Amino acid sequence: MMKLPDPMQKVVDELSELPSIGPRQAIRLAFYLINEGPDHLRNLGGAIEGLATMKVCARCYFIHENEDDLCDICANPARNAKIIMAVEKETDLLSLENTKRYTGRYFIVGPVPKTGFLEPWQKARLTALAAFVKEELGGQADEIILAFNPTSLGDFQASLLMKELSPLAKRVSRLGRGLPTGGEIEFSDDETLGASLERRS
Amino acid sequence: MMKLPDPMQKVVDELSELPSIGPRQAIRLAFYLINEGPDHLRNLGGAIEGLATMKVCARCYFIHENEDDLCDICANPARNAKIIMAVEKETDLLSLENTKRYTGRYFIVGPVPKTGFLEPWQKARLTALAAFVKEELGGQADEIILAFNPTSLGDFQASLLMKELSPLAKRVSRLGRGLPTGGEIEFSDDETLGASLERRS
Repeated sequence: MMKLPDPMQKVVDELSELPSIGPRQAIRLAFYLINEGPDHLRNLGGAIEGLATMKVCARCYFIHENEDDLCDICANPARNAKIIMAVEKETDLLSLENTKRYTGRYFIVGPVPKTGFLEPWQKARLTALAAFVKEELGGQADEIILAFNPTSLGDFQASLLMKELSPLAKRVSRLGRGLPTGGEIEFSDDETLGASLERRS
Repeated sequence: MMKLPDPMQKVVDELSELPSIGPRQAIRLAFYLINEGPDHLRNLGGAIEGLATMKVCARCYFIHENEDDLCDICANPARNAKIIMAVEKETDLLSLENTKRYTGRYFIVGPVPKTGFLEPWQKARLTALAAFVKEELGGQADEIILAFNPTSLGDFQASLLMKELSPLAKRVSRLGRGLPTGGEIEFSDDETLGASLERRS
């Protein structure tokens, strides 16, 4: 491969390390950025450095920019601290929060490795959650919701977390399965339709 | 949609504008970056700002970092200035250069719009090329190679450029169709690409 100039190779290396960006896309992005010119480079570079002002919540691990250790949701006394929804990632939290139908708190587990062994930082998060439940909720939350995808991987993640979290709550639940609103019976797959029969309400 | 903090929204907006990155991927990347922490943010942001030291060649429009207006290829007296290969994009140039079978110069046209109307900056590049051919090559290059993808879009681009460039060269050629039709230059192996250089027609 023809050697790229150092400043460009550096950016290609950095971009290649980001999730879902491959080395070829990184090269194309770097060429694109160079052609955009210095003003745009300063805007993008400065914006990325500006993310350093963001903080990660000490309780649920969502992001925030207030002065405290806690995010806006965890710091909000109107949100029920005794109901905790465990999610895989921040974007899942955003989607659930957008429903405006949930008034409890969250807990971001991070992507559970397919090996089934949690990463050390994930174990640290679970330890901190257990300490919070013990100290602030008297030993048990009212409910922990395992909000993982309704897929075989999601089922696997949920069963793994079930072991860790079931001692911490009076009830552990998962998101309901059934027909997606707006969907049609005729075009639903067997699994979805079967679940909707078994869990009819 | 739940409102994102300003520093994060700014990065999401900037990333969404990049080619091949959609709004959802931009949000996921921003969350990833925040979780990576300040050191990583400074590295990536600084690297992107560092691209401002890169220059675009005044003759072929490839990138370089030397003091002059010309890139390393255009400044190299061993490269035949009378043979000019027109390419769509920098990554095509990289792939062709990697064959080590080409000793002429390049000319980056940029992506030709499907409308068939060249952008003003593309017309400016062609005007500059015509001036160079007139002043430095006595009115005609020995050969201009239209190195566009062997696809219907590439054929269209080549026919469009043929009109513009045929007065500027004794011979206008395209890469040999040793290339698998329907494939792309960027993804071809060196041997196939080298053969297409030798058998250009």
